[in-house]
Amino acid sequence: MLLDQFNGPLKPAGLPVPEPEPGGLLVRIAAAGICGSDLEIAEHRDPRIDDELLPMILGHEGVGWVETVAGDRVDLFGDPVKPGDLIVWNRGITCGRCNYCAVQRRRALCPHREVYGISLSARAPYWLNGCYAEMIYVRPGSELIVLPPGMDPAAIVPATCSGATAAHAVELCDIAIGDTVLIIGPGPLGLFSAAFALARGAADVIVSGTEHSRARLALAEDMGCSVLLSSDTRAGAELSPNVVIDAAGAARSVSQALDAVAVGGTVAIPGVASPIGEVPVDVYEKIARKNVRLQGVWVSDARHLYEAVSLVQSGRYGLERLVTHRFKLSEANEALAAVKSRDAMKAVLIPD
Amino acid sequence: MLLDQFNGPLKPAGLPVPEPEPGGLLVRIAAAGICGSDLEIAEHRDPRIDDELLPMILGHEGVGWVETVAGDRVDLFGDPVKPGDLIVWNRGITCGRCNYCAVQRRRALCPHREVYGISLSARAPYWLNGCYAEMIYVRPGSELIVLPPGMDPAAIVPATCSGATAAHAVELCDIAIGDTVLIIGPGPLGLFSAAFALARGAADVIVSGTEHSRARLALAEDMGCSVLLSSDTRAGAELSPNVVIDAAGAARSVSQALDAVAVGGTVAIPGVASPIGEVPVDVYEKIARKNVRLQGVWVSDARHLYEAVSLVQSGRYGLERLVTHRFKLSEANEALAAVKSRDAMKAVLIPD
Amino acid sequence: MLLDQFNGPLKPAGLPVPEPEPGGLLVRIAAAGICGSDLEIAEHRDPRIDDELLPMILGHEGVGWVETVAGDRVDLFGDPVKPGDLIVWNRGITCGRCNYCAVQRRRALCPHREVYGISLSARAPYWLNGCYAEMIYVRPGSELIVLPPGMDPAAIVPATCSGATAAHAVELCDIAIGDTVLIIGPGPLGLFSAAFALARGAADVIVSGTEHSRARLALAEDMGCSVLLSSDTRAGAELSPNVVIDAAGAARSVSQALDAVAVGGTVAIPGVASPIGEVPVDVYEKIARKNVRLQGVWVSDARHLYEAVSLVQSGRYGLERLVTHRFKLSEANEALAAVKSRDAMKAVLIPD
Amino acid sequence: MLLDQFNGPLKPAGLPVPEPEPGGLLVRIAAAGICGSDLEIAEHRDPRIDDELLPMILGHEGVGWVETVAGDRVDLFGDPVKPGDLIVWNRGITCGRCNYCAVQRRRALCPHREVYGISLSARAPYWLNGCYAEMIYVRPGSELIVLPPGMDPAAIVPATCSGATAAHAVELCDIAIGDTVLIIGPGPLGLFSAAFALARGAADVIVSGTEHSRARLALAEDMGCSVLLSSDTRAGAELSPNVVIDAAGAARSVSQALDAVAVGGTVAIPGVASPIGEVPVDVYEKIARKNVRLQGVWVSDARHLYEAVSLVQSGRYGLERLVTHRFKLSEANEALAAVKSRDAMKAVLIPD
Repeated sequence: MLLDQFNGPLKPAGLPVPEPEPGGLLVRIAAAGICGSDLEIAEHRDPRIDDELLPMILGHEGVGWVETVAGDRVDLFGDPVKPGDLIVWNRGITCGRCNYCAVQRRRALCPHREVYGISLSARAPYWLNGCYAEMIYVRPGSELIVLPPGMDPAAIVPATCSGATAAHAVELCDIAIGDTVLIIGPGPLGLFSAAFALARGAADVIVSGTEHSRARLALAEDMGCSVLLSSDTRAGAELSPNVVIDAAGAARSVSQALDAVAVGGTVAIPGVASPIGEVPVDVYEKIARKNVRLQGVWVSDARHLYEAVSLVQSGRYGLERLVTHRFKLSEANEALAAVKSRDAMKAVLIPD
Repeated sequence: MLLDQFNGPLKPAGLPVPEPEPGGLLVRIAAAGICGSDLEIAEHRDPRIDDELLPMILGHEGVGWVETVAGDRVDLFGDPVKPGDLIVWNRGITCGRCNYCAVQRRRALCPHREVYGISLSARAPYWLNGCYAEMIYVRPGSELIVLPPGMDPAAIVPATCSGATAAHAVELCDIAIGDTVLIIGPGPLGLFSAAFALARGAADVIVSGTEHSRARLALAEDMGCSVLLSSDTRAGAELSPNVVIDAAGAARSVSQALDAVAVGGTVAIPGVASPIGEVPVDVYEKIARKNVRLQGVWVSDARHLYEAVSLVQSGRYGLERLVTHRFKLSEANEALAAVKSRDAMKAVLIPD
Repeated sequence: MLLDQFNGPLKPAGLPVPEPEPGGLLVRIAAAGICGSDLEIAEHRDPRIDDELLPMILGHEGVGWVETVAGDRVDLFGDPVKPGDLIVWNRGITCGRCNYCAVQRRRALCPHREVYGISLSARAPYWLNGCYAEMIYVRPGSELIVLPPGMDPAAIVPATCSGATAAHAVELCDIAIGDTVLIIGPGPLGLFSAAFALARGAADVIVSGTEHSRARLALAEDMGCSVLLSSDTRAGAELSPNVVIDAAGAARSVSQALDAVAVGGTVAIPGVASPIGEVPVDVYEKIARKNVRLQGVWVSDARHLYEAVSLVQSGRYGLERLVTHRFKLSEANEALAAVKSRDAMKAVLIPD
Repeated sequence: MLLDQFNGPLKPAGLPVPEPEPGGLLVRIAAAGICGSDLEIAEHRDPRIDDELLPMILGHEGVGWVETVAGDRVDLFGDPVKPGDLIVWNRGITCGRCNYCAVQRRRALCPHREVYGISLSARAPYWLNGCYAEMIYVRPGSELIVLPPGMDPAAIVPATCSGATAAHAVELCDIAIGDTVLIIGPGPLGLFSAAFALARGAADVIVSGTEHSRARLALAEDMGCSVLLSSDTRAGAELSPNVVIDAAGAARSVSQALDAVAVGGTVAIPGVASPIGEVPVDVYEKIARKNVRLQGVWVSDARHLYEAVSLVQSGRYGLERLVTHRFKLSEANEALAAVKSRDAMKAVLIPD
């Protein structure tokens, strides 16, 4: 399914299968996720994406079966990767030898980072560079995890982007055993953040959302969180959370987060993934005097992917329930619409 | 010297000497520092201070000789404290057993924190609660450091507030060996921050200031920093500092810091110690996409005091040169004026 | 119940109730725990304890109802403490203003640390200094946590020593989401360590014990751990745990831990609480070449107590099941015997 | 200069120059360092090295001028690498996508790590795999740093191995401003460790050595350290260092380090780079009760190389003085002898 112009529908296309370079893999997509970012790309609201990339295959969230391996490859843990294996790969491809990769050890920030389904055109080498497809070409430098054979591929899909980004946010938050954590926004990013907060030992994890998102809040309650309607500001003021994770990513939620956070606490903002304009911040009252850390969170790396996959596999939080809608690959436009309307929490495409 | 009304001059007063409780000390002031905050208190611009505190003895920066110890006291390192010892004490008094003191281990944030010369009235118990005086009463719970006998007391004075606060900022910045650090504002807080950045192994420390502050910038150069005129914004843009410490604490300097900091970097704002209004922040471009940490820094604790005293004593950065003016205690109003006019970098009062 | 000579039975004694100093509390013991260390003290195998301390009231693990508060006291979170409240207190009393307390922020290591039931004689001030008693005197400097009224006091008892020490061990281990953690020794310290490892997001927590400890291993399985018989060394070799916590504290378990731990991992040894002689360590193969951290863990502080209490209260791991035996206070000698024979996992004394 | 049998002399050999693969570089050696490990390899005492590697070109420490770049390469900071540039490269080559590289972010521990001059035979692809040569082939995955043109290449040589390993040790030690640090062993590893300890803000850095090493100790004093003869054990006992770095790497120095370290401190052992047999450790007294961290340190990664190069370039510690002897390439056997006899602190080979 090709995006050949912004704001137009994705169109089916028959592309040839490339010949892998040494270390490359051809992978048959088992399930591909629809991310909010895909909508922003398709509607030309993501400042990173311009015409030169078109046509492109969207889809940076994916799980698939190995079709071909060119040479020997092992996964993160040294296990050989063979045809027929169910695998997941890091959506970002980093250079591995720049200051951010090798000195700072923060590969999410590599200036040479490329992303399947986001920064790689269908005109770039190997062209099968996105997950809204039957087959993807996974490059030699991509980190791989082999999954257990019996696993539902769709259940892992949300880990590849929302889950990994939540892991990055939580890494930068220093949650301690017994902490109170407030999560604003009960989408996939918010619920993964809530699960990670529980998994780091937070005593109270509160997920806040609107009336509109009652079904998502119910999922949070099932996980072991308490929930809060975002209209109920009085209740919020009493929580005094050590950590607030803004998974909504709006000017208003950033302000709410800074209001709510306790003295000495951290506000992480993984939800801010596209421009939200200028937010007026009372720097003295909200940041200085409260000794608060306001932490940007940009994308994720292989550690975060591993953590998110590990969290889903643990079965402790029922994260497979994030996948609320399944579509055929040919229904990609309908799937995008379901995400746009917020009917779907996480929609996945399952090629026939 | 008593402050008995805001915006009025300090007036000499003869107060009796209190009888110490067990563990308390009477200390003869050897040198007391004039801090920018003292001006803000005297001019009623510090939101923490109101009429109920008056009359009060200003002065939270001090060094002195022990006159009397009630019972046995030891300093941080277990050395007994005896009459005649030159000592320095933590200006903040914390409860030691609340969540911030005992669980979070961040005593600077103790909600019960009192500060000599700031939060303690001359009507409170033991009344000699500030350093603009011949004698101060140091409470049983205050952490103490005994100084070597030959030391110039005035040289240590800036460590007790600016130095300790800079130590707190640097603690929250994770400076690595080889980093580039930009310091905005070449006052005592900025120069201590610069010294700490060098002391943590930064490769390049750049101190920025205005034309007006050339003498202070020259001191920074002597320390081993490079300097930058704040008007020279072009140069700033190329530095790409890993860490920016805003020691100026204005809306404009906070914005400059966020503009300048490198991807993945930290902006710490110890200079924001009084209200600066709302600062418009492009949260997506400046914080999220750059994965930046904006870190509030509120006051300091005994660790920070120890680090600042240690840094001065090391002699590596010539920090004794921060003290540019010395006044008699009776000249406290002139000393405040010298700080207000920015003629003095750090002015100290030396009782006769 | 007084210990008046080593290796003799505890004897009932009627001591008067002291008058509290300001900030002190008289607390009616609701439940007191028998710790392995109590046995070592009673049998004179703890090198810290000598004749001068006798007679003493054993018992450093306790929970109780406030009888009297001298003046105003608040708990860790600022809640006032009133007669009738069920409370728990930090068993260690630290000075709060030494290098370890105030600079290093590691109050567990305070050289002035005193411990109820361990270092305080019945001849010291306030004499009611241990938990094997109807009433204990809790000093002004002790950190307090008020518990919810309906809670079973005995369930909290193991948190006050084993739980807090496990929290300290886990703090020093840097467990990451998805890690594999091996716990050697399924006693209270081991099971708390296992619960904390799960609470920090470990993917696999394996508890190893002997045939003799099958009941304890079953508890570990119920928590969500897998178990391993310590005779099954072959299985251990394949685990490659990132972290090993030795809660058994013998020369053999320390060696096993160093053999088992993965490259780059950590071995923490909270179980080593009394002398175990010299352990021969192949420093090159086991520590240097594997880049291993061997970490001593000594006692705990108020943060660790809070974390352990929080973990019990979360109800996530069924930690109340650690209490396998309840005795009357007058049966303290029988309770010690039950711990010595290993029949009891955790025995508690419940005064009438 | 080829090593074609253990315990035999290195012999000159004329090997052809390989054709670089894309991203590979041919580099003309400007200076190559003799490391103690080279002696251990040549004398067959390094357990990692066996006959299958022979013949090999020794030398993992090197600096050189780029002769040819196959395609475009940039250095760590994005600067293009061109023929004629003076460069340094990470001696270790890691896979970049295994658990240690990508999840744990500790590339020094990559199980696929290869090292120029240590693990790569002259029979392996590209054969010019060591620095005791006129030319080396630097692989596409190696991290590079371009050096300023005027710099003495020999001055950087010790940074590539001793310096980088010292950086790794110091990273794992958490040195704080004001700490006391004891370094055992005044060789290149010890003196780099001392410089890093100063660069992290230690107040007192004490370097201990034997009578035999007075010249090296004098260098330490020049850096700003104090020195201690290792025979003077009484003095050592009073230091109570927060951190001890064992750069001597003998059973005796490990024991001394554990004896000397303060409660709560860290002992790092980067000097243990070859087997030293079993060291008897009183685990209770030296590790548990003192809450000590005994930390293995294995090799280093690109961050450490950057830090060491940065430290040399800062000029703050006179680290260029570590190079005491310069030999022609053809005098490699004499250079090895000078290191063996300890006449040379650091000997370098300078090809004509």
